[in-house]
Amino acid sequence: MTFDELFVPAALRDAVSDGAWLAGMLEAERALAAATASAGLVPEHAASAIAEACRGDFDVAALAADGRAAGNPTEPLVRALCARVGGDVAASVHFGATSQDILDTAAALVARDATMLVRQELEGAARECARLADEHRASVTAARTLLQQAVPTTFGLKAANWLVGVVHVRNRLGALRLPAQLGGAGGTLAAFGDNGLAVLNAYAQELQLPAPVLPWHTRRLPLAELGAELAVAAGFAAKIALDVLLLAQTEVGEVRLDDAGRSSTMPHKRNPVGPVLVRACAEHVRAAAAALLRLEHEHERAAGAWQSEWKALSDALAYAGGGAAALRETLEALEVDTERMRANVRAETLSEAERFAPAAREPDEYLGAADALIDRALAFARE
Amino acid sequence: MTFDELFVPAALRDAVSDGAWLAGMLEAERALAAATASAGLVPEHAASAIAEACRGDFDVAALAADGRAAGNPTEPLVRALCARVGGDVAASVHFGATSQDILDTAAALVARDATMLVRQELEGAARECARLADEHRASVTAARTLLQQAVPTTFGLKAANWLVGVVHVRNRLGALRLPAQLGGAGGTLAAFGDNGLAVLNAYAQELQLPAPVLPWHTRRLPLAELGAELAVAAGFAAKIALDVLLLAQTEVGEVRLDDAGRSSTMPHKRNPVGPVLVRACAEHVRAAAAALLRLEHEHERAAGAWQSEWKALSDALAYAGGGAAALRETLEALEVDTERMRANVRAETLSEAERFAPAAREPDEYLGAADALIDRALAFARE
Amino acid sequence: MTFDELFVPAALRDAVSDGAWLAGMLEAERALAAATASAGLVPEHAASAIAEACRGDFDVAALAADGRAAGNPTEPLVRALCARVGGDVAASVHFGATSQDILDTAAALVARDATMLVRQELEGAARECARLADEHRASVTAARTLLQQAVPTTFGLKAANWLVGVVHVRNRLGALRLPAQLGGAGGTLAAFGDNGLAVLNAYAQELQLPAPVLPWHTRRLPLAELGAELAVAAGFAAKIALDVLLLAQTEVGEVRLDDAGRSSTMPHKRNPVGPVLVRACAEHVRAAAAALLRLEHEHERAAGAWQSEWKALSDALAYAGGGAAALRETLEALEVDTERMRANVRAETLSEAERFAPAAREPDEYLGAADALIDRALAFARE
Amino acid sequence: MTFDELFVPAALRDAVSDGAWLAGMLEAERALAAATASAGLVPEHAASAIAEACRGDFDVAALAADGRAAGNPTEPLVRALCARVGGDVAASVHFGATSQDILDTAAALVARDATMLVRQELEGAARECARLADEHRASVTAARTLLQQAVPTTFGLKAANWLVGVVHVRNRLGALRLPAQLGGAGGTLAAFGDNGLAVLNAYAQELQLPAPVLPWHTRRLPLAELGAELAVAAGFAAKIALDVLLLAQTEVGEVRLDDAGRSSTMPHKRNPVGPVLVRACAEHVRAAAAALLRLEHEHERAAGAWQSEWKALSDALAYAGGGAAALRETLEALEVDTERMRANVRAETLSEAERFAPAAREPDEYLGAADALIDRALAFARE
Repeated sequence: MTFDELFVPAALRDAVSDGAWLAGMLEAERALAAATASAGLVPEHAASAIAEACRGDFDVAALAADGRAAGNPTEPLVRALCARVGGDVAASVHFGATSQDILDTAAALVARDATMLVRQELEGAARECARLADEHRASVTAARTLLQQAVPTTFGLKAANWLVGVVHVRNRLGALRLPAQLGGAGGTLAAFGDNGLAVLNAYAQELQLPAPVLPWHTRRLPLAELGAELAVAAGFAAKIALDVLLLAQTEVGEVRLDDAGRSSTMPHKRNPVGPVLVRACAEHVRAAAAALLRLEHEHERAAGAWQSEWKALSDALAYAGGGAAALRETLEALEVDTERMRANVRAETLSEAERFAPAAREPDEYLGAADALIDRALAFARE
Repeated sequence: MTFDELFVPAALRDAVSDGAWLAGMLEAERALAAATASAGLVPEHAASAIAEACRGDFDVAALAADGRAAGNPTEPLVRALCARVGGDVAASVHFGATSQDILDTAAALVARDATMLVRQELEGAARECARLADEHRASVTAARTLLQQAVPTTFGLKAANWLVGVVHVRNRLGALRLPAQLGGAGGTLAAFGDNGLAVLNAYAQELQLPAPVLPWHTRRLPLAELGAELAVAAGFAAKIALDVLLLAQTEVGEVRLDDAGRSSTMPHKRNPVGPVLVRACAEHVRAAAAALLRLEHEHERAAGAWQSEWKALSDALAYAGGGAAALRETLEALEVDTERMRANVRAETLSEAERFAPAAREPDEYLGAADALIDRALAFARE
Repeated sequence: MTFDELFVPAALRDAVSDGAWLAGMLEAERALAAATASAGLVPEHAASAIAEACRGDFDVAALAADGRAAGNPTEPLVRALCARVGGDVAASVHFGATSQDILDTAAALVARDATMLVRQELEGAARECARLADEHRASVTAARTLLQQAVPTTFGLKAANWLVGVVHVRNRLGALRLPAQLGGAGGTLAAFGDNGLAVLNAYAQELQLPAPVLPWHTRRLPLAELGAELAVAAGFAAKIALDVLLLAQTEVGEVRLDDAGRSSTMPHKRNPVGPVLVRACAEHVRAAAAALLRLEHEHERAAGAWQSEWKALSDALAYAGGGAAALRETLEALEVDTERMRANVRAETLSEAERFAPAAREPDEYLGAADALIDRALAFARE
Repeated sequence: MTFDELFVPAALRDAVSDGAWLAGMLEAERALAAATASAGLVPEHAASAIAEACRGDFDVAALAADGRAAGNPTEPLVRALCARVGGDVAASVHFGATSQDILDTAAALVARDATMLVRQELEGAARECARLADEHRASVTAARTLLQQAVPTTFGLKAANWLVGVVHVRNRLGALRLPAQLGGAGGTLAAFGDNGLAVLNAYAQELQLPAPVLPWHTRRLPLAELGAELAVAAGFAAKIALDVLLLAQTEVGEVRLDDAGRSSTMPHKRNPVGPVLVRACAEHVRAAAAALLRLEHEHERAAGAWQSEWKALSDALAYAGGGAAALRETLEALEVDTERMRANVRAETLSEAERFAPAAREPDEYLGAADALIDRALAFARE
């Protein structure tokens, strides 16, 4: 919402669009038909007809508007599917499922695909961090604490710290997968008789999603943890962006962005736009994650908390991806001025090291384990 | 984002759409041309040509995408306007302004118009609360504390409490108005020479917006306070919605919604959808407000915090309006079962009152100042 | 919690301590006894005895621990008071009130006193801002947008922007006052018979607190709005702190803090500690405010949301005050290096102004309305 | 802060107290002396003297107050330690470390110990959930969606859902461990010369904490993830508490708490206090977690974000533990009224199941896979 194109790459906008949610819902209905058919609960020909109908076009804006009466878009979609398949087959549509089964499964599919895009952008950012860490082992710069110069370090070690963080969140995001959802109205799989667990497993397998231990209609931990980890990813991207912005300040001038932004009034200005976008995106991810951390879903289906997840999940994914993409672009465009870095180091900045290594005379002699730490970071990234 | 049509009325979606933001930006550029012309800084014919160009159509999605390079959509819009007016007039476009001047002014216009819609919905909700308070002065029901019956009260007093809160937030929202923004690149109005304040005032007058004490590029208090008050409005609407949901529980049954929602699987169910939407909306408003409460805007223009406001403001307005609308609809559709209310009052619920009024025998005799308090609430609402 | 002494002045720690809450609760019980006596509901001698008992000492930690069984500390306090007054008088203790009446009134008293301390610190900060604005009308410095130099401005105008914000929040905080609370178990004032409104008004008058329109047991708008405004105050203080930190950077060096912090290892470092504390405090205020913005209090007393307010309110007040105090100290200790400011302005930073005023040659000639804007700010602060 | 004794068990209050933080800091200084001695950087006798001094008493409130000048409590502690050991040994105190090394290590120790207490409480809650799941396999009750009865389920399956969530968060918390921190002023381990990595590893081993890949002064992912998982734990505990509160409503009456809370005015009331405390605690954990999710720590040490972590971490741990303890107590005290559960099931609640199993006549015949799902949950908990 509001200038999305400015913040979120097209692929991610698509991946969390209402169209993507609709595709997920249709895939869930198709998988349900297949799974119930395999258990002999609905006829095979009905499952085929439903699969065919699920390949059709639906007006998702109209479904959403129509869903206002039911409180969710599944109910009008099921009606539309029934109308399409017609006759006897309609009785096999949505067999044994509840609206939340379909929508939660769509959420799992949307999250899976969008998270992959987020991770790709993080992968690109990690590649740049690794390159910078390796290339700038000897690029002496001032370590800054509380925004004051402290002691010498290298820009390579700074980038190594970024690298370890980016790889960490990429790995954590890779380990989080939302399971398929199927439970029926009360979470008992009652409509499937003795075949409940079999249908659940067949359904998850059709969807290539993990099967849950139990239906998770009101046990929303995976969604909360995904939201939180997206917020961590976006927040750490923003940490790197902030470092870049501080290094790019006019008075510091240690880095520049070679595609720096145009100003509407000041032709001389080269605005560091990429890191600005990263930081703006992080606010939206954190806001959305806060909504996903509200786990108080009543009884067997929540009266509000569930319905607030859809937008929150889309926002968290889209802006985490927007931030990761802008971070990657920022790092790709980063021009490092190693001479300025060295020249900026103040004489007094060497003083602490001198206390411990009085024979040393150049900042390069006070770098301690910086190089060895870079090796550790690169090894961690390769694991 | 994600099934917006399910949560937000069309008028509010329009009021915060990218199209509305664009209209606000064009109105700002028009007003700037008029104000600078009135100070003799740009030719009158140029101001007319700019005003004409501002009535044209622009592709806001393309502007947003193009704005990724500049970090905001104003820069491409100014280029597009210059191209339209052409020749000498181009030099008069955006004269003395900075991108943030235009976008902040658009935010003020969007907020003004959308807040009015939010207030209209709150007004409708207040009307229903007042009606319920007045009609149910004698509808005895159990006051419930910690979800346990406590002592008797009336449904009228419950509605009176709702009324006072809704009127309060409607009034507070009415008192919050974002000012026009104009300062130029550094907030000094430097391009206007000695006419700085005159241009600022003329600009605000053209826009029918308050003039600020100073340009507020990094003094974002009005936006934070608007966000917070929208969160208060949405949160209080959700309090009412929660009361309705609790009263509508199968086992309580003291209210019903006559347009209650369809279930995709259970024909007998009448889902209380309206209050569910209210609660879902409140989460989004709070999340957006949290982003608007980050006031740490650096120096004379923020590197991230400003750019995160646009979506946050739109979301806060849209979902506050969505919540208010769903609340109004909920209250309009509310069927009150006064017999069930009275029948639900347990014998032991009368005990406290009996300690103080041992002669009384009916719950109606233990209602204390309930009726007088309703009068106070109705008087407060009429103020 | 955790090194409070480092962040919060002693006066504010006291003002929100459990002792202060206890004092508020005792004052509420005293006022209730006086008000019910004035209505003839309890004997005058009982009111006197209760007032006497309320001047005694109570072990607030023991009351809190004991309150775990009741879910609030009022219940054990009432028992303790009854034990102290003994005999017949005990029946007059807490007459007609509910635990929340007493605790909410204590909250109102704590908030009133602590807010006054917060406002005093803001007043001190405003005084310093005004001084800086006036003294530095001619101190040319670079306006910085997106952390890049943009055009010239003055440090006086920067301080004027700070001033307007600080005065605004001080004024807004002054306008927010929590009302007294009295409603009895169901909010009907039932125990007072026909004297309900009279007792409510007498009680509020005893406490020198505003009387509410209705009891506000579950209409928590004043608390949410106070929390939000404290977050705005703390956030704007953090904006100023961030500006100071950025100006104090080693490579910028335009300001210094003359009481700058010691480093545990680097004797040469002068850490800008004050603004760091301001920023840390702001995070806590925002976190606490978020809790206070949850307005979904069930029916006539909330099952969780109410009980979470006590700590949230204390935290919001304490850390808003901590932030305001550290801001005041920061500004009092601020050494401004006007030569460095001027020297830092880059040649290209003059370029925009040159487009509009090509005859000008010095940055002082490009300052537009800076001086007039400072006058507006000073006038606003004097209002 | 504010009636902590009401919400947080004594063991957890101790575990996050300033005393516990001080103990952690002293343990860090001791381990540092040992590690640097083992590398031959400081004399063994100095390390022994430091270890002895670290066993002494220090006034933590005075250290915190004194730390206001330095912006952290480590600096005054180091001065105090130097004064105690005196003479030559002072030069070996805090050798090569920075304040953040010591405080972050203390955070890791506090988090380790407090998390263990949180997990013990969760373990107790899980045990109760497992018991309830197993005992109530045949306790038919209504599944409720949007707070309306939907179809039959069992209370055992409801408890099984709780169980899976509690076990999940307990496991996740067990997998999160904050590493030791050591980097020196710039994160380069410079003072240790060629022994940097050796000292780091020896230090971590002394502390029995994981060694980090790199110093993590501004890569705060572990802390953010711990905060988020504590919020997830507290939020899910609050979900269970909400279910209990809803079941305990006067009009539902399916559960009672046998130690239910006293009311200050209504002797007949049995307030469900435990779940109320759980919900209040969850708000505080979420608020604290939000602060910990702000990862934008500048360069090599943050100017505000770091300093805001201490209280946020303590709050998150204390209130997560408070919530978990109140949940355990709630579940231990839960009296389940299986007759009421069955009696509450409405006739129409059977309708969906009847569509699929028309021959069935009793709710017990519509329970689908409920029993098999309970088995899965119990097996998951035993893993």
